[in-house]
Amino acid sequence: MEKRSVTIEYCTKCRFMMRSAWIAQELLQTFEGDIDEAILKPSETAGIWRIYANDRQVWDRKTERGLPELKELKRRVRDVIAPEKNLGHAETVEPKPEA
Amino acid sequence: MEKRSVTIEYCTKCRFMMRSAWIAQELLQTFEGDIDEAILKPSETAGIWRIYANDRQVWDRKTERGLPELKELKRRVRDVIAPEKNLGHAETVEPKPEA
Repeated sequence: MEKRSVTIEYCTKCRFMMRSAWIAQELLQTFEGDIDEAILKPSETAGIWRIYANDRQVWDRKTERGLPELKELKRRVRDVIAPEKNLGHAETVEPKPEA
Repeated sequence: MEKRSVTIEYCTKCRFMMRSAWIAQELLQTFEGDIDEAILKPSETAGIWRIYANDRQVWDRKTERGLPELKELKRRVRDVIAPEKNLGHAETVEPKPEA
């Protein structure tokens, strides 16, 4: 079976390490049994914060203009790693605040 | 340059995830610029808690009869990942309590 992983690539100068480790824990907990490894990948690229589920990029701070809301991120990871998994309360989509 | 990684393999049933994530953060911080990735690897093997620096095992809970004292662990990771690195206060070896 192909290894199922999430990778969080983060800018070290932006002090994203703790947030990245927190999100890794959330994903490891929510997807226990579905994820074989969570990889924290420090980067020197200024401002970078990306998440990959297996090889697919599911979040990029630059294009999304910010860091993810956790429920949205979990839905995107689920869609790649365990498409049949129901996320319970995380299924409800928060209404986007008016721009 | 060969990828420099630390891997923490931990028993999920023993609730070692948070401690493993904490230690990953400590290593990422102490070895910033020396480590390319920190991997959290959940395992179903009961009681397992191992740390690898690159491919070399530097801690095994079973053979060491417990989890590491952080300074000792950092010295072992340093000896593999960045042998020339001085760890400052982490260099002082705590006297082992009398058995």
